[in-house]
Amino acid sequence: MRATAIAHPNIALIKYWGKRDEDLILPVAGSLSMTLDTVATRTTVTLGGERDTFTLNGEAAQGGSASKVFRFLDRVRSLAGSHTPAAVVSHNDAPTAAGLASSASGFAALALAASTAYGLELTPRELSRLARRGSGSACRSTVDRFAVWHAGTDDETSYAEQIDAPDMRMIVCEINAGPKAVSSRDGMLLTRDTSPFYTEWAPSTERALERMIAACQAGDFTRIGELTELHAMRMHALTMTTEPPLRYLAPASFAAFDAIAKLRADGVEAYGTADAGPNVVAISRPADAERVAAALSEFGKTHIAAPGRGAYLAADGSGEAA
Amino acid sequence: MRATAIAHPNIALIKYWGKRDEDLILPVAGSLSMTLDTVATRTTVTLGGERDTFTLNGEAAQGGSASKVFRFLDRVRSLAGSHTPAAVVSHNDAPTAAGLASSASGFAALALAASTAYGLELTPRELSRLARRGSGSACRSTVDRFAVWHAGTDDETSYAEQIDAPDMRMIVCEINAGPKAVSSRDGMLLTRDTSPFYTEWAPSTERALERMIAACQAGDFTRIGELTELHAMRMHALTMTTEPPLRYLAPASFAAFDAIAKLRADGVEAYGTADAGPNVVAISRPADAERVAAALSEFGKTHIAAPGRGAYLAADGSGEAA
Repeated sequence: MRATAIAHPNIALIKYWGKRDEDLILPVAGSLSMTLDTVATRTTVTLGGERDTFTLNGEAAQGGSASKVFRFLDRVRSLAGSHTPAAVVSHNDAPTAAGLASSASGFAALALAASTAYGLELTPRELSRLARRGSGSACRSTVDRFAVWHAGTDDETSYAEQIDAPDMRMIVCEINAGPKAVSSRDGMLLTRDTSPFYTEWAPSTERALERMIAACQAGDFTRIGELTELHAMRMHALTMTTEPPLRYLAPASFAAFDAIAKLRADGVEAYGTADAGPNVVAISRPADAERVAAALSEFGKTHIAAPGRGAYLAADGSGEAA
Repeated sequence: MRATAIAHPNIALIKYWGKRDEDLILPVAGSLSMTLDTVATRTTVTLGGERDTFTLNGEAAQGGSASKVFRFLDRVRSLAGSHTPAAVVSHNDAPTAAGLASSASGFAALALAASTAYGLELTPRELSRLARRGSGSACRSTVDRFAVWHAGTDDETSYAEQIDAPDMRMIVCEINAGPKAVSSRDGMLLTRDTSPFYTEWAPSTERALERMIAACQAGDFTRIGELTELHAMRMHALTMTTEPPLRYLAPASFAAFDAIAKLRADGVEAYGTADAGPNVVAISRPADAERVAAALSEFGKTHIAAPGRGAYLAADGSGEAA
């Protein structure tokens, strides 16, 4: 009747951009990510009460974010054959300060906590599919360390599973550039509707994913890095071809990419990526992470993350969200 | 037996990027440009001597640039049925300081001076075609004010001609970013060979050109500006999708684009474009040019250009290049 789950953000090496089905949240192509070991979302779901409630970081949530959570609970209840309301209490570690979106960790934690509280015993694949319905990339945050999200063709076949990859670090650099002007969801729709290159995006991403999987299987960090930066540039280039042009990267973001290229020229293997916003994330071998962080510190606050756990249940009692 | 011609650079509003024929220099799509009234190339061709010579800015030119000029003279001689060598003396105004490539003005001036010296009486269309063989975009610098380069399907049908457009100014901002790492020619080949989006580039550029021609005919400066910035972003986005990614714009170039967007937010209609390098060129109505130049001056030296003349012959005697 009560469960607490913890989940972390993930950062994609092959990006997710564009849905083939808005309702089921089926992506146009597969993607591949690392789950981080920093910045947790901790969520407790307790059955009972008169109606659903959602408390986020100590305050009752309202509006769009609350109704998304309540619709998600409806989905879990329909799987469990239950009509009992639930209280959702969630806490994000430093949600804005880390420059990482909280939707992936948020819905991964909610999927595990809610499905457990309602008595569902989901397989890892079912859990990933459920999280996907809350926020697409959340399906990858249910997976330990590195995850491949298979695009699939329907609800059953679109899920994330673990893939082996060499140990690495992600250095997140927060570029201060004000609030994001266009959400990822709206950016994806604008891209679909106005970019002349969108038709080539899905097939080229599937090809990039195949190459990335091969590089992970070969344990080839250099190749993984090159493919990571290549695909990130392609995603950001794609958004710049919308009408009007949509650019998530700030001038300082490009300067950070230049600094990463300079690190490589100096013999430190680092590669850059960025989600739909100005923050830049470098990947490096573990031993190089501090040097990379030092080089990026002139552009903003940096954090180093290692491969982390997928969503997991808190030990008895101790894990209740504040 | 001697002729002097003057020509100016041009900046495209719809960009030329990619050839369908390397030898004939046939582009994959049409383009549209403004010929500037600043930064002249002045070239004198004098028949006679033992062999071809090329003097550029007072120094005997050697290597690749000289052999390109001599091959161009061969083409002119074959049209004229002549075997007489020629001395080419050319002078570029501040060739590097203005941040504008000199190949377009250079081959437009050479095409007119050489064809005149060898006694050819070319039509405007023939002159444009001849200039194209030296450097693709040179075919546009033979045209007064605004030029459409029809892509064509062979040597005869690929040429530039004048189009009416509203009076405007171009504000060239020199972004100091070191020498260009990859030439336009090599960048075009890399794009053709490695960008997954290249197949969509030519058809989308032809559609953009149709819309730009309609905007010019309607005298709609706002629409011209929006299409200019849209197409520039698409060209630069396209190069960023090569393997490895090729980015001509520097962080400060993006900052200049952001400053241009801020001018618009403040009610000054300016729009940005950029050729294959870090320099940014804003277009504005004539009355706004000084204000735009002031806003861009923090990113580099600025120059204001108005629509200028296509390649023309110097008045008798007075025009000999230094």
